Amino acid sequence: MNDVRVAGVGLTHFGRHPERTGRDLFAEAALAAREEAGVARDAYEGIHYGNFMGALAERQGHQGPLMAEAAGLDCPATRHESACASAGVAVREAVHAIRAGEQDVLLAGGMERMTNLPTTEVTESLAIAADELFEVRAGMTFPGAYALMARAYFEEYGGSREDLAHIAVKNHANAVPNEYAQYRREVTVEDALNSQPIATPLHLFDACPITDGASAVVLVSGDYADEHGLDAPVSITGTGQGGDNLALQDRESLSQTPAAEKAATAAYDDAGIGPDDVDVAEVHDCFTIAEVLALEGLGLFEPGAAISAAREGVTTRDGRLPVNLSGGLKAKGHPVGATGGAQIVEMTKLLRGDHANSDALSNPKVGVTHNAGGTVASAVVHVLEVDR
Amino acid sequence: MNDVRVAGVGLTHFGRHPERTGRDLFAEAALAAREEAGVARDAYEGIHYGNFMGALAERQGHQGPLMAEAAGLDCPATRHESACASAGVAVREAVHAIRAGEQDVLLAGGMERMTNLPTTEVTESLAIAADELFEVRAGMTFPGAYALMARAYFEEYGGSREDLAHIAVKNHANAVPNEYAQYRREVTVEDALNSQPIATPLHLFDACPITDGASAVVLVSGDYADEHGLDAPVSITGTGQGGDNLALQDRESLSQTPAAEKAATAAYDDAGIGPDDVDVAEVHDCFTIAEVLALEGLGLFEPGAAISAAREGVTTRDGRLPVNLSGGLKAKGHPVGATGGAQIVEMTKLLRGDHANSDALSNPKVGVTHNAGGTVASAVVHVLEVDR
Repeated sequence: MNDVRVAGVGLTHFGRHPERTGRDLFAEAALAAREEAGVARDAYEGIHYGNFMGALAERQGHQGPLMAEAAGLDCPATRHESACASAGVAVREAVHAIRAGEQDVLLAGGMERMTNLPTTEVTESLAIAADELFEVRAGMTFPGAYALMARAYFEEYGGSREDLAHIAVKNHANAVPNEYAQYRREVTVEDALNSQPIATPLHLFDACPITDGASAVVLVSGDYADEHGLDAPVSITGTGQGGDNLALQDRESLSQTPAAEKAATAAYDDAGIGPDDVDVAEVHDCFTIAEVLALEGLGLFEPGAAISAAREGVTTRDGRLPVNLSGGLKAKGHPVGATGGAQIVEMTKLLRGDHANSDALSNPKVGVTHNAGGTVASAVVHVLEVDR
Repeated sequence: MNDVRVAGVGLTHFGRHPERTGRDLFAEAALAAREEAGVARDAYEGIHYGNFMGALAERQGHQGPLMAEAAGLDCPATRHESACASAGVAVREAVHAIRAGEQDVLLAGGMERMTNLPTTEVTESLAIAADELFEVRAGMTFPGAYALMARAYFEEYGGSREDLAHIAVKNHANAVPNEYAQYRREVTVEDALNSQPIATPLHLFDACPITDGASAVVLVSGDYADEHGLDAPVSITGTGQGGDNLALQDRESLSQTPAAEKAATAAYDDAGIGPDDVDVAEVHDCFTIAEVLALEGLGLFEPGAAISAAREGVTTRDGRLPVNLSGGLKAKGHPVGATGGAQIVEMTKLLRGDHANSDALSNPKVGVTHNAGGTVASAVVHVLEVDR
């Protein structure tokens, strides 16, 4: 089986770019990744691309061929969609294609354009990631859904709004040096606690922002990298995906995310590692409570233990296991269909040692990324390892 | 590399089912495929699912997990979208996952719900498969786009509306015995010629209908099929994908479909066959002219030669190379996101000898399916072979 190397990575700034089209955003990320990889244009054999709500935001489906053009490539391109896990799934499909022996050089990533819509329309568009018949028609939106999950978690394991506030504080602090991040400013626990309530117990600073942006990675087979002398020290050594019922009402528990557990178990097995081997993680913190659920789903903390991890300094930049050194969805921003690819970009830089926050890590070897869709009805986990 | 076998297939009736939800339609196809395969429920490791316009037709994105529930399966599920080639791409992704050695049992297929929308809204929704900025805003819809392609073809190679009418006549005749087809009635050349004009030179009977429906196939590795003694004589031996610029204005020619040529070349190479080995084909005849372009793109006819193939009886049920024995998109119907999967279903039955039109074939060994997105900006080709 061919191993899969990351030969180049690219991002746009994550933020408000309502004047830019989706193709313009993806072109920037793709061309940056292509330039870093230095692979000949005609070597590219396919594009795996994540996008969630383009049919609503730009009245544009069938974005694969459009993004191939934007990336300057003459190769087939497919769009993959698993709500907020769309680009994570796109990366996974690229890994499969290389491992299947069919292809050696692929571009993967994603894009979302969101701020061109009024905020209420964004919330309604995001809601198509939930069950239209049994959740959305009853009035459910994602802040409400994650608030239910936070309440269930607090009831089962304890925890407080202050614990969650520490996650926001941590991720904002991490975003400050990251030039791609939407909110490069620190916030305090008081700022978070005093921010506007959005769905009890969540307040505004528990939620990620609405963001435009794109991400891209060039993935090559180990054979190709070696033959062409590419500088590609980071490999994707594990991939896993998990699923759950789409509607919260059909879940056995609201305080656990079995889809993430399944994805993590599969990815760890695939890579031949365990959670204890993980040095650094980028997880899907669309809300602060989501980071807690992710860390427990990944087996990095026991159930009930991750809620205090940021407050106790375990997941902060100087802690034992830094989490979301990029700033996370919370502060870096969350252009939905781009996020899973951006996690691979950030993790690659962290493992290579050329990330704005690389000084927080000492010789990291294994990183894990966790990308979730909806209320974690979909989860994709990747294990990245650096060879040096 | 694991070979990929078709262990079970399922379809809904293709037609007008505005009262049925998408999940209801997919459940029917998936359960039929599961029943035929006879594989244990807990053996399923993933679902690859095609859907094109669910965000507009049902305000439902993130359909993967929903369709896993509908299929009665507890496994991860991903939606893939390449416009009308969505299910073809889904099958291709499943083939990669099995060949990568990661998974042994997968469900692939797709679904589209369309007739619940007013016809004008369907046309507008389908148009998101074209370039919003450079085609749709200028007023282009798909009947108009394929009319341009037909005119370019006629200008370059000759051909007439009567040639196209023979394709409609052929595919309607094929649909008569097919219980899953939307239009099980014969039409005459005169009917087609006298039908309402929609975009010169195309008339109503040159176009496929608006359709609800779903398709599903159970794909297993050869190792799994052998170990479990499954009756799965048909294998997917070749897969290929091709891409082109999304907008017609960016193409060098309107009378050829290089995306299909690339997809076919890749699929033939993958299977180790050539176009001369093909015994039977299911191609993407969203319009009659599209069948002509497909047959030439697949290398089954020289450029300019396919226009007269139906009229001359070469592609009819008693011809040398029967094409669209299912009835094709034209008469069987075209639930967009389901079509590529339905082609695999029909071809599997044709090769196994249990299709309603199997009497048209004498000991077929190799079949090819061709699924296209937009104006063939995306194309997916699969080669199926039967072992007997």
